[in-house]
Amino acid sequence: MTTEFDLIARLRSLATHPAARGLNDDAAVLSIGGQELVVTHDMMVEGMHWLTGQDMADVAWKLVAVNLSDLAAKGAQPIGLVLGQMMGADDDRFLEGLAEALTAFEVPLLGGDTVGATTGPRALGLTALGKATHSPVPSRSGAQPGDGVFLVGTVGGAMMGYEALRDGTGGETAAYLRPQPLLAEGQALAPFVSAMMDVSDGLLLDASRIAYASTVTIDLDPSAVPLGAPESRRDDALRWGDDYALLLTARPGAKLPDFAWPIGKVLPRGKHALLLDGNPPADGKPLGYQH
Amino acid sequence: MTTEFDLIARLRSLATHPAARGLNDDAAVLSIGGQELVVTHDMMVEGMHWLTGQDMADVAWKLVAVNLSDLAAKGAQPIGLVLGQMMGADDDRFLEGLAEALTAFEVPLLGGDTVGATTGPRALGLTALGKATHSPVPSRSGAQPGDGVFLVGTVGGAMMGYEALRDGTGGETAAYLRPQPLLAEGQALAPFVSAMMDVSDGLLLDASRIAYASTVTIDLDPSAVPLGAPESRRDDALRWGDDYALLLTARPGAKLPDFAWPIGKVLPRGKHALLLDGNPPADGKPLGYQH
Repeated sequence: MTTEFDLIARLRSLATHPAARGLNDDAAVLSIGGQELVVTHDMMVEGMHWLTGQDMADVAWKLVAVNLSDLAAKGAQPIGLVLGQMMGADDDRFLEGLAEALTAFEVPLLGGDTVGATTGPRALGLTALGKATHSPVPSRSGAQPGDGVFLVGTVGGAMMGYEALRDGTGGETAAYLRPQPLLAEGQALAPFVSAMMDVSDGLLLDASRIAYASTVTIDLDPSAVPLGAPESRRDDALRWGDDYALLLTARPGAKLPDFAWPIGKVLPRGKHALLLDGNPPADGKPLGYQH
Repeated sequence: MTTEFDLIARLRSLATHPAARGLNDDAAVLSIGGQELVVTHDMMVEGMHWLTGQDMADVAWKLVAVNLSDLAAKGAQPIGLVLGQMMGADDDRFLEGLAEALTAFEVPLLGGDTVGATTGPRALGLTALGKATHSPVPSRSGAQPGDGVFLVGTVGGAMMGYEALRDGTGGETAAYLRPQPLLAEGQALAPFVSAMMDVSDGLLLDASRIAYASTVTIDLDPSAVPLGAPESRRDDALRWGDDYALLLTARPGAKLPDFAWPIGKVLPRGKHALLLDGNPPADGKPLGYQH
């Protein structure tokens, strides 16, 4: 059985066009008519990306939000969405959530495809198109030794929301169910960053991805990371995904907006891609959500 | 339970941007940087769009081909593909077929998303992006009384291929398994057509879609339709999909390339959207493949 890692490696060998950015980025960046078009696609599958029985309005919202978060990481302005929808018993709620998200993020639905329900888990796909607002379009590969590392937003809120939902505690679930893509923040940051991505799979894992793509080491100060979870859960929050914060690096002296919070520094590439207060992360604990 | 017809009607109420063309077209058409970008998305689901056990190389080819066929109907030149892939046991064959299609149609893979396998049928989604080669970009809504109706390609070949595969007769299956999007033909035709679409769901059904979108009646001469099936199967071939021929209308005297075959005429909208030799189609038999 091919692993997902192997599969992506093989897809990468097919995606040789420069616009594909070696599949090492949140989105493809394509020049068309003197504009830079940013294109991203995320799938969500029942039981894998949402809990069976969840309100489909939240699922629709999240499908839109996670794709727009990839555009945010490129400093792009959304121009349209294309939906691949498998029908289900609660399409009414799905459409209500979709309509709410289209309105909230001021992005038009342009088209797509609808297929009938099957006996298995429901699958949804969304392609988001955006227009770059700054060139060069931020990537994961531009971090340089001496840069600072910054976070916009918090991590851990989605974890708390997921647990509240799973355990039926009645706790706050919005961060998990209704994430907010940081579109305005991404556009404001794009001119000042050396690298940027959205934190979808866990801060530590995603920071190591910037480190690999940029051939640097990233040294984070875990205690400086703004949390959306209790302090006692800090270590889990650093490894949990789904928060859609923005992680970025910037040259010393870059005039970043003050919502960018310093959480570490970029070093020349050493033995480890990622350090926490100068030390490699403990073995055996995943850095994030590999999916 | 919402029907697909109802669902699409409700999606249409959300897709109010002009680029969405009221979801009445094969693709969205979006102006960006002075270029017209054509965007389409098709999903394929195991057991619905392919037979379980089919060679996944053929499925990958078809996923690419059906999306490119939508671009062909707009006279667009493909510029990139974005793939949503659910993993399965035979990803190697899928990647081989994908590589073959990328090479055959000279289109780059730009990115996408990969998700793990589930217990249910496998779902795949593909977004194709193209650049219009002629403006205005052909739509389904431009047919006018007095126009001729033309077909490029044949119908019925995919039906024969599907039956050969299903029944294991050893007959020719390429038309079903490896359809060819008529990209060069679509680009050559775009300047001369009043309406155009690809025949994915059956010639009679798709002709009636042009008639509804254009508020005209289309009168076909069934005996003139070029077949990829035996004459004895003509009536079935007119209602079977998956051939990816191009159906178009053109003003009298339009200098169409000679591969466009006359199969009917456009009349003012009468009681029926579709006529066969002047008579409405017999009741009770579907015009095509509704899915």
